[in-house]
Amino acid sequence: MQRIPLARRAAALPPSRAPHPRDSISFESGHAFPGVLPDLTRESERALTHANETLQYGPRPGLPGLRDWISGHMTSEGARVTADQVLITNGAKHALELVCRALLDEGDAVVVTAPTYFSAIPIIRSFGARFLEVGQDAAGIDTVAVGALLRERRQAGAPLPKFIYDVPDFHNPTGVTTTLERRQALLQVASDFGVILVEDSPYRSVRFEGAPLPPLKALDPDNLVLHLGTFAKLLAPGLRVGWVAGDPDLIARMTALKTDAGSCPLTQRIVLEFCQAGRLGEHTRRVQEAYGLHRDRMIAAIRRELPDVQFQVPSGGYYVWLTLPEDMDGAELERQAAREGVAIIAGSRFFAVSGPEQGARHVRVAYSHADVDEIDEGVRRMAAAYRMVSAADSVGVGR
Amino acid sequence: MQRIPLARRAAALPPSRAPHPRDSISFESGHAFPGVLPDLTRESERALTHANETLQYGPRPGLPGLRDWISGHMTSEGARVTADQVLITNGAKHALELVCRALLDEGDAVVVTAPTYFSAIPIIRSFGARFLEVGQDAAGIDTVAVGALLRERRQAGAPLPKFIYDVPDFHNPTGVTTTLERRQALLQVASDFGVILVEDSPYRSVRFEGAPLPPLKALDPDNLVLHLGTFAKLLAPGLRVGWVAGDPDLIARMTALKTDAGSCPLTQRIVLEFCQAGRLGEHTRRVQEAYGLHRDRMIAAIRRELPDVQFQVPSGGYYVWLTLPEDMDGAELERQAAREGVAIIAGSRFFAVSGPEQGARHVRVAYSHADVDEIDEGVRRMAAAYRMVSAADSVGVGR
Repeated sequence: MQRIPLARRAAALPPSRAPHPRDSISFESGHAFPGVLPDLTRESERALTHANETLQYGPRPGLPGLRDWISGHMTSEGARVTADQVLITNGAKHALELVCRALLDEGDAVVVTAPTYFSAIPIIRSFGARFLEVGQDAAGIDTVAVGALLRERRQAGAPLPKFIYDVPDFHNPTGVTTTLERRQALLQVASDFGVILVEDSPYRSVRFEGAPLPPLKALDPDNLVLHLGTFAKLLAPGLRVGWVAGDPDLIARMTALKTDAGSCPLTQRIVLEFCQAGRLGEHTRRVQEAYGLHRDRMIAAIRRELPDVQFQVPSGGYYVWLTLPEDMDGAELERQAAREGVAIIAGSRFFAVSGPEQGARHVRVAYSHADVDEIDEGVRRMAAAYRMVSAADSVGVGR
Repeated sequence: MQRIPLARRAAALPPSRAPHPRDSISFESGHAFPGVLPDLTRESERALTHANETLQYGPRPGLPGLRDWISGHMTSEGARVTADQVLITNGAKHALELVCRALLDEGDAVVVTAPTYFSAIPIIRSFGARFLEVGQDAAGIDTVAVGALLRERRQAGAPLPKFIYDVPDFHNPTGVTTTLERRQALLQVASDFGVILVEDSPYRSVRFEGAPLPPLKALDPDNLVLHLGTFAKLLAPGLRVGWVAGDPDLIARMTALKTDAGSCPLTQRIVLEFCQAGRLGEHTRRVQEAYGLHRDRMIAAIRRELPDVQFQVPSGGYYVWLTLPEDMDGAELERQAAREGVAIIAGSRFFAVSGPEQGARHVRVAYSHADVDEIDEGVRRMAAAYRMVSAADSVGVGR
């Protein structure tokens, strides 16, 4: 935080969102569907029988058993990391914060996609970094643009960005999954320039169809990938158990900066008990099925109620990214939708730099939290808001 | 973290401690005595029945019910803070980290006592701050020295320190409790210069005798005190539930910088259920009684086994701060004690700047974690180590 004027730091706060009426339907948050939250009573009871582990300070890098489990899990996906290369954090956002603390000095550059995960923006910005945006298409991050950008900076004698931040699986907000070819190209560019890749992968297991692609960390001979993982999107957001895995020296540096007396051993143990009891596989199928149904219901409703809106059908994750007709403003639609009783998020918030231009024609809609009937009703409300914004636009007001 | 060279950041890591033999007795850590860890099974069960609160993302500032409870608790101690002035954190160290993120720019000065809490040193240092040490006596922080230091800097045109960090109740490591007069003098100095006071008070309720003095926050008409609290030392370290309370603008700024998606709502709810069930009062008495017995046992053992060592008897907290005879080196005693099978901490680690000079003749000994028999045996081992260091000193080796 050094040398960042206080006013700038406060600006790192995402704008506070107006409260919604009590019956507002939530398409805005990454909250879980209450129907898939697991019953953790048994795990919690078992965890508390180890009170001298779970109620004492935990080891700074995390519970050894959980680091082992994560190492095994990642290795089974082709990403060979040892338990020593795993640092447990208070969720994946905390992992990103530690990455920033370890790597960023004020004025450093960070590459992000346009659009990118909107909660990553204030975290990275609060460390005084500047953003370099690159585009994304249906195959993922534009690696040609990344290569050109890095080459240009090298030729100009400018410092290279400290890292490239991306969400390769079911990208937030676009839902795009980076293809294998694009993943390989991204690793090649990172390797050519020796730039660190931060792979944020909270939705990886929330997959509705198709086979998983290897994580970036599995394609990483030079150990340039820092993989951020979490149990939030699969198990429960409230547990606040995530991790970062990667190069041992970087993990050691982040561990040194993790001065919070260790992450909560109780919630770590609850997660470990859940995984060791073999419940994760069945639970994952249940989550995939529930969110798959939600996705289908929302896609059908949008096609029915909002035929002029364009989108790609995501094959996993929590979100649909809508492209509105020219001249329709996403921020205006967000405001009108809130009045109609459905919360969505204007696209501009997902762009670190170019929000007003690139984001204007988009909104992000989450199908995770609402139930299927709320999804139908919420899309009806969105459509009502859409018609009002259209009508206002056509008579030249409302802007 | 801006502009701090990576080597410096790594140096912020406290030196890693050598592993102790399996049967080593722990006088070094602030871990709880296992015998006073509460049974939280019922609280945890009840918390999980509110799964849509406890397993979802929690509100960024903390659970409203817990903020209310803390506000009521602090108000009952004379420190009138509203729930809005309370930010829940992942333990008190996380609260200190947020204070640093909100207030410190590289090169800023921070006032600490000499000695001070050793875990605060790397946290503050990792933000690039410089330490100004002031002394402490049996009445607490030397407020005359604080006043002189602030006046000197003002006269020299140097920027004032960003905050004064102190542990007024059962200071870590010295066990000293700041007197009422000294508290008032400290507030007066802070007020004269408009400097923020960070009151770190984890041991406040771990009191064995005497009446509590008002917290600094209760003597604070100008709202200069940021009060750090925690349930770690009273309830359980592993819960990682702490807080910072103070000026609304500062709390808002720290809340903005708390980008970790909210602290764990499950552990917050467990704490709240415990407090709301009225268990805290009885549990506090149990903790006071147990640690009071540990303190008595350790004081008796030290008097018996180490008659040449000086100390003040603490009336609360976890620690005794020993002053060794001239020419005995605390670091050497720490090393020899480890060989004898008891872990203690050399005094030099508790000084932000002047450790080698001021700390050499001290060690900190914790009576919290070990049971009473281990306390007797641990002090016997310390005494054996002490004799070996003395003998080596008298023949001129071992330094």
